[in-house]
Amino acid sequence: MPSLAAARLASVGPRWLASRYRRVRSLTDQLAEPLSPEDCCVQSQTDSSPAKWHLAHTTWFFERFVLSEYEAGFSPHDERYNFLFNSYYVRAGDRQPRPKRGMITRPSLGEVLAYRASVDERMGALLGGEPSAEALELIEIGLHHEQQHQELLVADIKHLLSCNPFGEAYASWTRSDDGLVAGEARPGGGVPAMSFVECEGGSRWIGADASRTFCYDNERGRHEVLVLPFAIADRPLCNAEVLAFVEGGGYERPELWLDDGWAWVVGHGVSAPMYWRASEAGWSCFTLEGWRTVDAGRPACHLSYYEADAIARFLGARLPTEVEWEVACVRRGERGRLLDQDDVFRKGLEPSVSPSPHEGWLAQMMGDVWEWTSSAYGPYPGFRAPEGALGEYNGKFMVNQMVCRGGSFATPADHIRPTYRNFFHPEKRWAFTGVRLAKDV
Amino acid sequence: MPSLAAARLASVGPRWLASRYRRVRSLTDQLAEPLSPEDCCVQSQTDSSPAKWHLAHTTWFFERFVLSEYEAGFSPHDERYNFLFNSYYVRAGDRQPRPKRGMITRPSLGEVLAYRASVDERMGALLGGEPSAEALELIEIGLHHEQQHQELLVADIKHLLSCNPFGEAYASWTRSDDGLVAGEARPGGGVPAMSFVECEGGSRWIGADASRTFCYDNERGRHEVLVLPFAIADRPLCNAEVLAFVEGGGYERPELWLDDGWAWVVGHGVSAPMYWRASEAGWSCFTLEGWRTVDAGRPACHLSYYEADAIARFLGARLPTEVEWEVACVRRGERGRLLDQDDVFRKGLEPSVSPSPHEGWLAQMMGDVWEWTSSAYGPYPGFRAPEGALGEYNGKFMVNQMVCRGGSFATPADHIRPTYRNFFHPEKRWAFTGVRLAKDV
Amino acid sequence: MPSLAAARLASVGPRWLASRYRRVRSLTDQLAEPLSPEDCCVQSQTDSSPAKWHLAHTTWFFERFVLSEYEAGFSPHDERYNFLFNSYYVRAGDRQPRPKRGMITRPSLGEVLAYRASVDERMGALLGGEPSAEALELIEIGLHHEQQHQELLVADIKHLLSCNPFGEAYASWTRSDDGLVAGEARPGGGVPAMSFVECEGGSRWIGADASRTFCYDNERGRHEVLVLPFAIADRPLCNAEVLAFVEGGGYERPELWLDDGWAWVVGHGVSAPMYWRASEAGWSCFTLEGWRTVDAGRPACHLSYYEADAIARFLGARLPTEVEWEVACVRRGERGRLLDQDDVFRKGLEPSVSPSPHEGWLAQMMGDVWEWTSSAYGPYPGFRAPEGALGEYNGKFMVNQMVCRGGSFATPADHIRPTYRNFFHPEKRWAFTGVRLAKDV
Amino acid sequence: MPSLAAARLASVGPRWLASRYRRVRSLTDQLAEPLSPEDCCVQSQTDSSPAKWHLAHTTWFFERFVLSEYEAGFSPHDERYNFLFNSYYVRAGDRQPRPKRGMITRPSLGEVLAYRASVDERMGALLGGEPSAEALELIEIGLHHEQQHQELLVADIKHLLSCNPFGEAYASWTRSDDGLVAGEARPGGGVPAMSFVECEGGSRWIGADASRTFCYDNERGRHEVLVLPFAIADRPLCNAEVLAFVEGGGYERPELWLDDGWAWVVGHGVSAPMYWRASEAGWSCFTLEGWRTVDAGRPACHLSYYEADAIARFLGARLPTEVEWEVACVRRGERGRLLDQDDVFRKGLEPSVSPSPHEGWLAQMMGDVWEWTSSAYGPYPGFRAPEGALGEYNGKFMVNQMVCRGGSFATPADHIRPTYRNFFHPEKRWAFTGVRLAKDV
Repeated sequence: MPSLAAARLASVGPRWLASRYRRVRSLTDQLAEPLSPEDCCVQSQTDSSPAKWHLAHTTWFFERFVLSEYEAGFSPHDERYNFLFNSYYVRAGDRQPRPKRGMITRPSLGEVLAYRASVDERMGALLGGEPSAEALELIEIGLHHEQQHQELLVADIKHLLSCNPFGEAYASWTRSDDGLVAGEARPGGGVPAMSFVECEGGSRWIGADASRTFCYDNERGRHEVLVLPFAIADRPLCNAEVLAFVEGGGYERPELWLDDGWAWVVGHGVSAPMYWRASEAGWSCFTLEGWRTVDAGRPACHLSYYEADAIARFLGARLPTEVEWEVACVRRGERGRLLDQDDVFRKGLEPSVSPSPHEGWLAQMMGDVWEWTSSAYGPYPGFRAPEGALGEYNGKFMVNQMVCRGGSFATPADHIRPTYRNFFHPEKRWAFTGVRLAKDV
Repeated sequence: MPSLAAARLASVGPRWLASRYRRVRSLTDQLAEPLSPEDCCVQSQTDSSPAKWHLAHTTWFFERFVLSEYEAGFSPHDERYNFLFNSYYVRAGDRQPRPKRGMITRPSLGEVLAYRASVDERMGALLGGEPSAEALELIEIGLHHEQQHQELLVADIKHLLSCNPFGEAYASWTRSDDGLVAGEARPGGGVPAMSFVECEGGSRWIGADASRTFCYDNERGRHEVLVLPFAIADRPLCNAEVLAFVEGGGYERPELWLDDGWAWVVGHGVSAPMYWRASEAGWSCFTLEGWRTVDAGRPACHLSYYEADAIARFLGARLPTEVEWEVACVRRGERGRLLDQDDVFRKGLEPSVSPSPHEGWLAQMMGDVWEWTSSAYGPYPGFRAPEGALGEYNGKFMVNQMVCRGGSFATPADHIRPTYRNFFHPEKRWAFTGVRLAKDV
Repeated sequence: MPSLAAARLASVGPRWLASRYRRVRSLTDQLAEPLSPEDCCVQSQTDSSPAKWHLAHTTWFFERFVLSEYEAGFSPHDERYNFLFNSYYVRAGDRQPRPKRGMITRPSLGEVLAYRASVDERMGALLGGEPSAEALELIEIGLHHEQQHQELLVADIKHLLSCNPFGEAYASWTRSDDGLVAGEARPGGGVPAMSFVECEGGSRWIGADASRTFCYDNERGRHEVLVLPFAIADRPLCNAEVLAFVEGGGYERPELWLDDGWAWVVGHGVSAPMYWRASEAGWSCFTLEGWRTVDAGRPACHLSYYEADAIARFLGARLPTEVEWEVACVRRGERGRLLDQDDVFRKGLEPSVSPSPHEGWLAQMMGDVWEWTSSAYGPYPGFRAPEGALGEYNGKFMVNQMVCRGGSFATPADHIRPTYRNFFHPEKRWAFTGVRLAKDV
Repeated sequence: MPSLAAARLASVGPRWLASRYRRVRSLTDQLAEPLSPEDCCVQSQTDSSPAKWHLAHTTWFFERFVLSEYEAGFSPHDERYNFLFNSYYVRAGDRQPRPKRGMITRPSLGEVLAYRASVDERMGALLGGEPSAEALELIEIGLHHEQQHQELLVADIKHLLSCNPFGEAYASWTRSDDGLVAGEARPGGGVPAMSFVECEGGSRWIGADASRTFCYDNERGRHEVLVLPFAIADRPLCNAEVLAFVEGGGYERPELWLDDGWAWVVGHGVSAPMYWRASEAGWSCFTLEGWRTVDAGRPACHLSYYEADAIARFLGARLPTEVEWEVACVRRGERGRLLDQDDVFRKGLEPSVSPSPHEGWLAQMMGDVWEWTSSAYGPYPGFRAPEGALGEYNGKFMVNQMVCRGGSFATPADHIRPTYRNFFHPEKRWAFTGVRLAKDV
């Protein structure tokens, strides 16, 4: 029996997927384009991978899971790459330890780009033939997988550049959509109002329907839940609210923090959001354009779950559960800024200034910043990891992480959906994570 | 308006509480009785506290939250004790750092026992008067708080004694209920059969009703949930199943483990449950009676969440959610061994050999070993931490921990209930934690 | 051929050694007398050992190296003690890991004191017989070994008590020789003058002559050296000079420090000598009497080599080499305060206020504080470690440590000598280490 | 009064120095030539620096200490470079933290090479004029400084390439002087005999005479010492002896090790020399040509001081003191393989097979491998660090390090001399460090 995904793909056909393949792969190349071989090689923290590794690993995914199975007369591009560019798929063989990804100075960037080109050519041939339903399904997963890495690449490059003492910019031609250099404070820019929108309680269905759209295993198992009435903010928190927290002594008040969060604050000497630094002129933050004044009207970003939770408490509210978030998004969510093929760099790589939503609607639910929920990442009822190496995609991370929802400015627009479940350990903040408040009613 | 707890207590009266006070306090003294001043002083790991600290801290709780508020002409027993014996109540003032609790060689054990006696006398006077409803409520909390520390004291002493190279026993007179020295393998003792009991799905109510019984803030907010049909094992896992996991290479097979769990296994070189060691004669384990052969028929204990999850996967099953556990316990749960005033030491301090439950019932749901659930510890809908220092009791731990249910042989019998939510970080295993399997139907 | 030590001992006879045995052992007991079982059990840092361990280990030394060899019908007091109370003698068998010495809550203090009494009785019988020359030599080593542990016991207890948040005193009856509570600032006490005494250069002999006095293997091999002329201070540095360093920004000026020293300052956030703390009233320091005002006229103590070196540089001088120190001590050294059977506790346990030396002499060369030299601890020419377990006494520490000379107020008076070479890693400062300046001429 | 160095340089003239400048700088370029931008950027351990950093830092040295002082109208090439490429000269301003040198992906390798070219041009102009004696002296120091970094560059690249899982070679065209690929075992290659050469004792002069040759501050202060008679091996230890140590259980026998050394073995799980790995076919080691069989006849390399000391003890000998080494080298030392402009890569980058020395002479005293001495690195009598930033060159490292003598195959031939004092912490082994035995007579 064909899978739901196979049936859906049969209806759109390989040509659509071939076109999508070209667009996705090309966007990755575009993201790497401003980077030097050195920029692409260095690993600036264990959580991050070098850009070269992202370029190669996403390619390896197609070679290992598609070509090696479905290409006639398959022979590996370079048999050592299976070791170098496997990420964590235990069942796909041994691999380079994650914290040592930056040691791979060879193959060079040039060799990795040639690897990309070669695999693209072979994938093009495969897609131009009559690929099986299973192959199409794997290719679609591979493209979504690559889109995840596009966002990681942007976050990782930001971290690397922040380690350069001189605030190097990702790409000098980047400009934001309001005509400003990204991250520059808007002259006279005020902070948009925030209000809470009430949502009724009752029985709701959450989760994805795999027959209608692509989705990961962790979103499947659409199921009914009971929700109590709640209220949710009509925009994410802006830097203005975070500044109030900082200036209100938020980082010195243990009663605002979860116990593990306070240990994190004390143990790491945390006193401001990541990438912020204080100077006499006030707070500035590192952006993909270099160091800029903190713009009060932009969504707050690079907050850990601990910070998100403490700031919510400081403001007399709480974080939404992932059920509340999804219910609200489906009914009332507006779309903010996402990563588009056409606007990469042109509009700058920063969350957009929060717009006013339509009355009763919720601005920026999709895009701009990922929003922490108060839900620990776990399996939906009946969850069962798929057989084989791809079964390691999601399930084995279901402990110690919190669910984020909604995507960021660095999430590709055709990658995100209301049921999408992202997740991070609660102390992480190099990803583009922000906060939306909720309240009991 | 009086609280629900106050109303309930009014109906039983202070005399009942005074009697309960004496019993609970006396059990603590009994637990400390076999220990020398040195045994009571040393802190063998950061997670543990010295017995002397438990003795003093539980006393401080009554002095600080009851006497200082409700005793006429209150004056502290020793004003330095507020610093020494506060645990984590930020709002009750500064305190000795947790990892340094073992440095408090002074006051001596004798002085701490005198502190206990003095506070008991003053509490006796208070209870013999006409304590207010609020005072009664705090005293009841204080007694449950002390009961939690009774179990911690047992777990902490076990850890300390395990660090002595010669396997010292807690108390030489300890004997188990089957006439054996605790932990000794029963001659010819087989392993009881295990089967799964199916439970229907549908709408259920979970959580505690504070008007009918004592409960903590984290169990309140009784609410309706939807449950899918499931099956649950009729006894906890025994050492027999864990031996099969060990011998089946469980600790060397990454595909059985959560990602964080595997990192824990590799990072700490874990290759067996805590307190187990291999010799030529087979596996033995440290018990409160010293080193003994692993008894295949006793419930497995001292497993981390990571191990519990991996063992369940190895056995083709999963852990129950806390909702499933509570639903099953309320309808079908039998009681196993708990800590009773009358049998401390007499029956030994070990989980009991698993009995056969009544047909369709679930053995040892309460007692013997805490059972890990697959649910992350979080707030029930509408949870709000109480005002004041006691508001720090539960809420601030609601991240990174997993819920355990059902109590152990070291949990006082009048302390546990089906709605009780205990919680530990997933790598912890010095507490008496075991596993019960569940399955989808 | 009898060893030099054996020949020397033959001339004084076993009766003298028996008397010395009783005096040394009794002083250890005296030092432990004010301590509770808890005080004696806890290990407050890896560098320190519990007092109970010192009491037992020094006893084990006699049992293991003397009685087991020379007592007729020897049988061990408790065969487990060889594991528990061996320190680092690899060739004397496996042993309790050093950082876990504080876990030994059992045997109790009482049992250890009984062990001492029993070994003393058996040693008395042995000494009352006709012990062989080899036995006498080992007993003499054992007594010097115990004297080393007497000083360690004092330093370790000081560290432990400093971890108690309330500044507990070692013994309440302690009083210093100037009628003050130890560590109390002398009213109107000035700082004694310091001047440099010039010493000629030329050829000199250093090292000990084992035919004339007891000495360790590391002092033997008396040999000729060439010394250039130098000048050496006529007293150790006092707190006054250290206060000047602190107030002159010494801990913030990298150019004053060795590279490893500066890394230590930054890595540990060092900003004052150990046991000092600042308050509004000025600097106080922890003493064996509790917290006291820093007394400008007492020798500075608890300085690391890094601090000693930096302070010397700050003052335009340098540390002496160990050759210079020994040459100066032999010719011009005066004796300061040492630990005597008769004045333990009575005169307080602190370095004495620096007296004025006789014209051209050097005050406090022996006693008060150990003095760091600029010499790395290494072998004298021809050094060869003795055969057997006692060969591990000194030689294996000859790397990464710096030589200290002269003993402290906690060094027994009949234990120290001008050729005595003590040694510590350069970052250590829980021992009673101070500074004497030197200069090129 | 001109310095001794200035007088000496005046006699050879700036033209000689200009020529030397070109040769030294060109050798550095040659060493970097086989490396990609990625190879040059990554920092594989804290002890190492990226090749790009070496290229830039050695250039900065000339810009900062020569051009900024002596070039008319000086303006910095890029004012940010003073921060990026200062190493540890506190008095030359703030700097990039050492462990973060690998984060400097920008400037690119191309920009750094342009920096080199620009400074070379300006230095050429300066040298072509009439530079002052002080300038000449600084330039000479700068060239020796660059030669030190040439050797570091080779050692650092070796470490980086060893982190690549596929054993990448530095440069594919490298060949050793015996026609073999570097590191390849010589077919039938035997192990040369080793014997000890006796040296008389007595009074000797050691240290450098700054009026006759270039020397660092740490070698100056030529002075008389007394030496006892000793014997020293006529070649360094070969892999044959190290294999005997490994196979004789050397890494499992604590009695062979210094106490700190044994802690290092246990703490790091050390069981073989650095870069060695065992396979079924025997031991192989990583070389600059990739993985090769261990060649028994080549000098052992990449040993820590702890290993050197333990191996010497295993072989019944000891390490020489630095005085013994220098005395022996001056009288009897032969020259082995050093780094020459003409043979870089051509002869391979490995220690040479040990030749037989002339009767009574000592083979390979200079070159092949640095030889650990048993002397801690400290000041010679009268040592005083120069004023200014260059005063930080040597003196501040005079603690916790051991002296190495004689240079290696990667030391430039015109950089080394018998009085040269190199130094490393005793656990380090990424440099080209080996062992020569000595004995008492």
